[in-house]
Amino acid sequence: MGRSLVLIMLAVMAFSRCIICMATPVEERSLLETGEFTLDSVRQSLTGQEDTIVYRLIERAKFPLNSRLYDQKYELVPGSPVTLIQFLFKQTEIVQAKAGRYLNPEETPFFPENLPPSVIQDRTYPVFLHPPASSVNVNNIIWDVYFNKFLPLLVKPGDDGNYAATSASDIELLQALSRRIHYGKFVAEVKYREAPHEYEPLIRAKDRNALMNLLTFKKQEEMVMRRVEKKGMVFGQYVSLNDTESTGKYKIDPSLVSQLYEKWVMPLTKDVEVEYLLKRLDGEQKQVP
Amino acid sequence: MGRSLVLIMLAVMAFSRCIICMATPVEERSLLETGEFTLDSVRQSLTGQEDTIVYRLIERAKFPLNSRLYDQKYELVPGSPVTLIQFLFKQTEIVQAKAGRYLNPEETPFFPENLPPSVIQDRTYPVFLHPPASSVNVNNIIWDVYFNKFLPLLVKPGDDGNYAATSASDIELLQALSRRIHYGKFVAEVKYREAPHEYEPLIRAKDRNALMNLLTFKKQEEMVMRRVEKKGMVFGQYVSLNDTESTGKYKIDPSLVSQLYEKWVMPLTKDVEVEYLLKRLDGEQKQVP
Repeated sequence: MGRSLVLIMLAVMAFSRCIICMATPVEERSLLETGEFTLDSVRQSLTGQEDTIVYRLIERAKFPLNSRLYDQKYELVPGSPVTLIQFLFKQTEIVQAKAGRYLNPEETPFFPENLPPSVIQDRTYPVFLHPPASSVNVNNIIWDVYFNKFLPLLVKPGDDGNYAATSASDIELLQALSRRIHYGKFVAEVKYREAPHEYEPLIRAKDRNALMNLLTFKKQEEMVMRRVEKKGMVFGQYVSLNDTESTGKYKIDPSLVSQLYEKWVMPLTKDVEVEYLLKRLDGEQKQVP
Repeated sequence: MGRSLVLIMLAVMAFSRCIICMATPVEERSLLETGEFTLDSVRQSLTGQEDTIVYRLIERAKFPLNSRLYDQKYELVPGSPVTLIQFLFKQTEIVQAKAGRYLNPEETPFFPENLPPSVIQDRTYPVFLHPPASSVNVNNIIWDVYFNKFLPLLVKPGDDGNYAATSASDIELLQALSRRIHYGKFVAEVKYREAPHEYEPLIRAKDRNALMNLLTFKKQEEMVMRRVEKKGMVFGQYVSLNDTESTGKYKIDPSLVSQLYEKWVMPLTKDVEVEYLLKRLDGEQKQVP
């Protein structure tokens, strides 16, 4: 009997270990599909999105600045006051809107005016976000930060004329950054549901600072910064069959990835969280005092 | 004097090593910019393109098959006989053509009919390819192979409804594969210029098999396969701050990358080389026998 018990215990241990193995490492899955919104699952999604952002940073850094794309004075689009990147981005969003991109609450358009309807009629998403708050959109700030502050740090100066490939790369990267930053809505909703009594007084008092403090975890942020820098090293290395060790050279400066997160991605995510929470009680039945 | 000589020799050795250090690792640069088309520089470009292909394979593998995108019977585009992916791809090419994508001889459209002109008027590329041969386009074969053979191996079955993000991912990956495969034109032109006397009789005899043999280097191909598999491992790993060693799990199966190259990318590149060479003497003044 004693021996059987040991065997059963060993089997159970092996099985649980197997479960753990299967569960890690974590794949990025759309939480809209699994429906399992928890602080952990939302963080897992954010972790997976880091990889996408790093790949796209590397891809954009292959091209020089190509500033004519961004400067209206070059009149790249004759007769139009927009820059070429604005023109191309808007056209891309129009195409992707037809494929239903912006029905997905994880996606936020940069040019939301006059987007066409989706040709897909039957795709619906479960409602997780509080509808009056789900419209928070900081893409104009992301746009400004990206082109005016971050991009000149990422790429070398110069113009190789590859405007189509460069702009496609900008669009992919900006969409990944926008998705990451607007995921703050999901973070905020999860946190609110976990402790509404903590948030409600601050929301009613419109106390942005107190909300920001409640949402800030310095240790967590520092861990994210170290992790994305490591991803910059791992994904940005030059791989050859010969080298047995790292060359110490990378396709992008890994510390730039942690800078991007420290200065812009994480603060903007928290801005989204605060903006979302400030609207979290809109449309709710008011409590009788 | 002997000591000075040794010092000078050491300095020269240090300097040449420094040059070597600076030259490696190799950055992917557009050869159209540098103008330095040699077999080595073309191979360097192909090596850089491998990284892009691996990143995009990983990105596409985040989504399940989402087969409704590819099946006309679902009538995702009401009133139109095309699949949703065809519709979206063509629309994307129309937008990118306006940004001058297809003025670049490195880029080959999948839907070349009725593409609009570029809004950029002053971008020209130096002519390196032989014009009558530069129109070789095997994108219909790449399309067929990708959707009917490769994609089902890459992704898990299922449908998460993320058609816009999935199709954007397909388009980026197909464009990277197409660019890589059509680089065969540049490979063929470089090889032809290095030894026209070897190629001309075979071209005049339309001897495809002999041309294919002349273009095939088994050892080189095996090296590429090992390298892209290694890239699948390096770029496809799950990075966390805790693990000190590899988990042995990857976001895509690394052997699938070498399979992709062995079965499709390298053979199709050589097909492009052969097709290009067969047109390489078109329009040239005929030799008097």
